[in-house]
Amino acid sequence: MKKISILGSTGSIGRQTLDIVRKSNDLEIISLSAHSNIELLKEQIEEFKPKMVSVGNEELRNRLKEMVDGVEILSGIEGMKTIAKDDSEILFTSVVGMVGLIPTLEAIKSKKTIALANKETLVTAGEIVMEEAKRNGIKIIPVDSEHSAIYQCLNGERQNEIEKILLTASGGPFRGMKREDLEKVKLEDALKHPNWTMGKKITIDSASLMNKGLEFIEAKWLFDIDIDKIEVLVHPESIVHSMVEFVDGSIIAQLGAPDMRIPIQYAITEPNRRENDIEKIDLTKIGQLNFEKPDINTFKPLYLAIESAKLGGTMPAVLNAANEELVAQFLNEKIRFTDIFDRLEMVLEKHDNIKRPNLQEILAADEWARKEIIKKV
Amino acid sequence: MKKISILGSTGSIGRQTLDIVRKSNDLEIISLSAHSNIELLKEQIEEFKPKMVSVGNEELRNRLKEMVDGVEILSGIEGMKTIAKDDSEILFTSVVGMVGLIPTLEAIKSKKTIALANKETLVTAGEIVMEEAKRNGIKIIPVDSEHSAIYQCLNGERQNEIEKILLTASGGPFRGMKREDLEKVKLEDALKHPNWTMGKKITIDSASLMNKGLEFIEAKWLFDIDIDKIEVLVHPESIVHSMVEFVDGSIIAQLGAPDMRIPIQYAITEPNRRENDIEKIDLTKIGQLNFEKPDINTFKPLYLAIESAKLGGTMPAVLNAANEELVAQFLNEKIRFTDIFDRLEMVLEKHDNIKRPNLQEILAADEWARKEIIKKV
Repeated sequence: MKKISILGSTGSIGRQTLDIVRKSNDLEIISLSAHSNIELLKEQIEEFKPKMVSVGNEELRNRLKEMVDGVEILSGIEGMKTIAKDDSEILFTSVVGMVGLIPTLEAIKSKKTIALANKETLVTAGEIVMEEAKRNGIKIIPVDSEHSAIYQCLNGERQNEIEKILLTASGGPFRGMKREDLEKVKLEDALKHPNWTMGKKITIDSASLMNKGLEFIEAKWLFDIDIDKIEVLVHPESIVHSMVEFVDGSIIAQLGAPDMRIPIQYAITEPNRRENDIEKIDLTKIGQLNFEKPDINTFKPLYLAIESAKLGGTMPAVLNAANEELVAQFLNEKIRFTDIFDRLEMVLEKHDNIKRPNLQEILAADEWARKEIIKKV
Repeated sequence: MKKISILGSTGSIGRQTLDIVRKSNDLEIISLSAHSNIELLKEQIEEFKPKMVSVGNEELRNRLKEMVDGVEILSGIEGMKTIAKDDSEILFTSVVGMVGLIPTLEAIKSKKTIALANKETLVTAGEIVMEEAKRNGIKIIPVDSEHSAIYQCLNGERQNEIEKILLTASGGPFRGMKREDLEKVKLEDALKHPNWTMGKKITIDSASLMNKGLEFIEAKWLFDIDIDKIEVLVHPESIVHSMVEFVDGSIIAQLGAPDMRIPIQYAITEPNRRENDIEKIDLTKIGQLNFEKPDINTFKPLYLAIESAKLGGTMPAVLNAANEELVAQFLNEKIRFTDIFDRLEMVLEKHDNIKRPNLQEILAADEWARKEIIKKV
């Protein structure tokens, strides 16, 4: 039995991870954590019988205690840190936001394999996290479809023979639009992703191409690669999940249905693979795969993310935090779609970058950026 | 220094292999063989200074002796067999025709790595050759772009986790045509391949899809895979050189410029890769990759090859020999393009298949098929 714990078990990735566990007979759940959806967590406790769970705060903890028996219930960041040190072999970090960072570092120190589904971990603190992973000799396996694709393409290959990472992007619902069109888009349009069904925040990030920008920064850390060796390719069909070009001119690509359960399962079984009930793609039915250059002049968040990656330091943390606040404002219909672009740029311009920041400096930069955004509205 | 010998050094693959050697500083040529182009072989001897060469017959041997010094000159099948036992580490078998089979088996027995560029070896005697390779614990590395692609996609993967091999085909110059159109095609049209520059025989085989049929049979032996797990996909751009689908729904593909030097170099360096001066592809310039099912009703040679693969025994040898004779007749403008299809079918129907044939039975089937074709014209 492979022992698995999940931070963020009631979110999209958490639920799909449990679906993989449900259909396997050699996977066991040790701990689960949820932010606030204790009704679903109760069902998960009853089905998967974890030893330990954690919820967002003390009040939720008390409510959950009334609802279930036979499980240790913790709360807050301390609860997540305790889970990070449990006796599981793989920790899925599928919480959203900076809250995933500290427990991930704890889990790395406990020599656990990390199945990474939390973007902020590497975007904001990639250097610290990867150094810690190296020091502890643990694997960080990406769960994101693009990074999982790259990870799969690198299977059996040598890192120093990489010519380029080709990170694919669907281009989102506004592909082909120019600035004047984007100024008029509505929230409901931004929430319509052509290929993937995801949470609201990531759907907006896909529409602005910020999602690809964050993945760009993650790829840099995850694969220890120079920024000028990462290229974003728009591929509207989302069938090629990413590619790696090697020095000999050969490109290895990973393709598959846009179903997160493939990379989730691979994170558990790698380098092996396992049968599942996910529908196989038929390329003759899909017929055509298209590729084009991203329009980073129009979709400025991608440009800003690449620039932040180049500057490094606390810049990516500021980018991420400011974007998170701006997307929240857009979701609340307080700002326009293109306001995300412009305000993001303003905050980045205003920020005094700290090179090789420590954890406290990263968290402070995050806080500073959020306040800057809130101040302005 | 890696020691390399080449059977068929004056042909297309042989010359490109020498181009790779020319541009490397750690590769050494031990022996070369050529069928009849002794002028080019003389140049190759002067440039690469092999210890031993072999030519098609005694007369050519005597002529070459007048032209060069300081190299041992052999001839005929015995010359090739001697080269197969030289002190090289890798033998490129890039001769055309059944003549490659015996020296390849000799080289396997001498524990050499085989860089396989001779189709007939596995098409006609796949079972014998692969068993011999297994017994001697040697690697057979494919040089064909499609099989090299599959070999690269399987790097770091497990054979028992293969769901399907997706063998891509350009579809040739007559893609989309129906039988009545094919009946009217001219030799010059058949010789115009859309993507690859190759010898005449293989160009005609690409136009009839027989080339893909032969590759289908090779793939079965090379990757030890059931016939119903190999699927041919028409991909007119010849950028995806082939793919492997795994049990988890993930597909790994290998892409690159249609340049044989990539798989040739990979056969030498694998599992490593090495920089070269081959132009890298830009998918945003190519723009679009298309996939469709092959029309095996119209392009009957592919259908016949798959059926021969299913029947096994001496059928593939008969298919290959009959096709070779028919293509020669078509190249001499003695028969029409579609006569290849029909006469191939007739010969296969007439053949008494021998299951698990020995080498003599395979050679006899080859001879029988050729006589049948010649009889008829």
